[in-house]
Amino acid sequence: MIKKLDHIGIAVSDMDSALRFYVDPLGLKCTHIEEVPDQNVKIAFIPAGDVNLELVQATDSESAVARFIERKGEGIQHIALLVDDIEKELDNFKEKGVALIDEKPREGAHGAKIAFLHPKSANGVLLELCER
Amino acid sequence: MIKKLDHIGIAVSDMDSALRFYVDPLGLKCTHIEEVPDQNVKIAFIPAGDVNLELVQATDSESAVARFIERKGEGIQHIALLVDDIEKELDNFKEKGVALIDEKPREGAHGAKIAFLHPKSANGVLLELCER
Repeated sequence: MIKKLDHIGIAVSDMDSALRFYVDPLGLKCTHIEEVPDQNVKIAFIPAGDVNLELVQATDSESAVARFIERKGEGIQHIALLVDDIEKELDNFKEKGVALIDEKPREGAHGAKIAFLHPKSANGVLLELCER
Repeated sequence: MIKKLDHIGIAVSDMDSALRFYVDPLGLKCTHIEEVPDQNVKIAFIPAGDVNLELVQATDSESAVARFIERKGEGIQHIALLVDDIEKELDNFKEKGVALIDEKPREGAHGAKIAFLHPKSANGVLLELCER
């Protein structure tokens, strides 16, 4: 079951300059910054209500975020939905023929279990499922 | 002041086909569909927690959504932040040199007051402010 929207991933080239905008003039706060070596990114967490805006900067040119920026420029890269049982959701999607990037969950920021659906299944939207 | 993330706008070419995905297999519900003639779009509202996913389909080839799809393909088009005083926010942004698409609020879905910031001010993100 989908519980809520968890976060929005925003691909940025220069985290420091992006952060300046979100903090002032926008008036939001960055709670912390974390590296996720498995995905070759670092992430700045900016709560907006109970959803996080996550500024994601590639730490390696092979990262999916670097390739996204090359192709489409900076901007919103993905949205993540919080689920209660990620394996069950993935089984459901497989059964219904939804194209998946991750057939099995892997580890995301904060030790969450995450998996991406393929954008071709979701009208161009890169959808992440996450379970905490 | 920014109160929360209000909604995410997803540009789709074919609302019926997109809705099928969000309802099943994804398991979300569409609460209603509304036309916004001022923006030449129709919008399907899909709550995910206290944030709406809004599927936006152009009703005219001149609509910003039609142009977005032509340029970038279907996908996440904008995110909207709920504010308590949109005029005050716009004044603050103007004073700080943030590029705006709308210098004054206009009417969005549900009679909200809305205004868009220019993506060049926000790392490629099309940001909407809305006041309800």
